[in-house]
Amino acid sequence: MGKIAESTVRRLSVYLRLLEEFAARGRGTVSSHELAARGHTTPAQVRKDLSFFGSFGKRGLGYPVPELSARLKDILGLDRPYRVAVIGAGKIGRALVGYQGFVSRGFHIALVYDNDRNKVGVSLNGLEVRDERNIEADLAREPADIAIVATPAHAAQSLVDRIVTTGIKAILNFAPVQVSHPDDVVVKNVNMALELETLSYALRNR
Amino acid sequence: MGKIAESTVRRLSVYLRLLEEFAARGRGTVSSHELAARGHTTPAQVRKDLSFFGSFGKRGLGYPVPELSARLKDILGLDRPYRVAVIGAGKIGRALVGYQGFVSRGFHIALVYDNDRNKVGVSLNGLEVRDERNIEADLAREPADIAIVATPAHAAQSLVDRIVTTGIKAILNFAPVQVSHPDDVVVKNVNMALELETLSYALRNR
Repeated sequence: MGKIAESTVRRLSVYLRLLEEFAARGRGTVSSHELAARGHTTPAQVRKDLSFFGSFGKRGLGYPVPELSARLKDILGLDRPYRVAVIGAGKIGRALVGYQGFVSRGFHIALVYDNDRNKVGVSLNGLEVRDERNIEADLAREPADIAIVATPAHAAQSLVDRIVTTGIKAILNFAPVQVSHPDDVVVKNVNMALELETLSYALRNR
Repeated sequence: MGKIAESTVRRLSVYLRLLEEFAARGRGTVSSHELAARGHTTPAQVRKDLSFFGSFGKRGLGYPVPELSARLKDILGLDRPYRVAVIGAGKIGRALVGYQGFVSRGFHIALVYDNDRNKVGVSLNGLEVRDERNIEADLAREPADIAIVATPAHAAQSLVDRIVTTGIKAILNFAPVQVSHPDDVVVKNVNMALELETLSYALRNR
C-alpha cells in the first residue's frame, strides 16, 4: 500500500472511532451512509477511503464492524502500545499528561521532562517530572516511541536534535516553531494559533 | 477566489510565520526556495500555493516580504481581531487561556466558562471563569466570533447547540467527539489522540 494523504489518515481515525461507537451499541454492520453522516463527509468519500484497503463491504450489506475496526487499527498502527515521552511540563505538557483519551488508544505517557528545578521531581498524574538533562541517558535504558515537544519556541530545536539521537522516529511538536529534523523522523506540528487561523480563514471566506 | 484546501490554508499560515521571521531580520524579499526549506515543503509547492493569490514574486527577484505578509494576513482573515470564548476550564481550557501565541495573532480570549461551582469565579490569567448557564445572556451583550469547546465528550453537543444560537459561526472543538452543527457554522476538531494516530500511522507505514 502506498502512502495515503494525511487528510485520509485523519478520516480513517474518525471512522475507527465511529465503528467503536457502533460496536458498543451492538451493531454488526454499518453503511457508508451512516459513517458519512456521523463523520461529516459523504458516502462516496467513505467508500473511496475504505476501498484503499481491499473489498470491504458488499453493496447493500454494509461494512462488517469488527473486521473493519481491526483492519483500521492495523493500518493506523493501533494494534500495539506506544511509549510516549513529553518534553516540557508547562501548561500544555500538564494538560497532555492528564489527557484521558491517550491510554484508550494505546498511547502511554511514560516520561515527562522539564528543565525547571521547581518542576523537576513534582508528580503529575502519578508521573514524576524528570530533569531534561537526563533525556539521553533515560531513553537509552527505557526507549520511547514518540516524543511530544511542549516547550517554548526557543528551546524546541535543540531538544528535537537531542531526541532524535535516542532513536525516536516520531515527534508531535507543540512549540510554535518549525523544527528541522532528519528525513526518517516524522514531525507533526500542532499549533493552537494555526488551528484558529483555519477558522479565521473560514470566517473571512464564507 | 474559490475555496482552498485546509492543507493549503495551513501552509499559508506557516509561510506567514516565516515571512514575519524574515521581516524581523530586515529582509525585503524572500525566495520560494527559502520558504520551502524553512517550511518543510518544495519550492514548486510554495509557488503553486502563492500563485492562487495573483502574480507575486518575479522570477529571480523573490517575493516582497511586507506585501506578501499583508496579502496572507488578509486572506487568512488576520487583519482584524477576534473575540474568543473558551467553554470548559479544565486542563485543556486552562492551557489555552494561558497560551501566549493567540494574542499576537489577534485571537483574544475574552470569556471562559465552566459548570463546576469550584471553578466559577476563579481567575485564570486575569480572566474570571464564568458560569456556563450564562453563555447565552453574556454573548447576547458581548458577542464572540469563535468558541473553543474544551469540555468532556458528553457535554460537547449540547454546548455546541447553545453556542450556535448566539451567532457564533466558528468553533474549535477539543472534546473527543464528532459534534453536529448547522451548515453555516465551521467546526474544526482538534483531537490529541488523533494527532498521535497520524504518527502511529507514519511509524507503521515507514
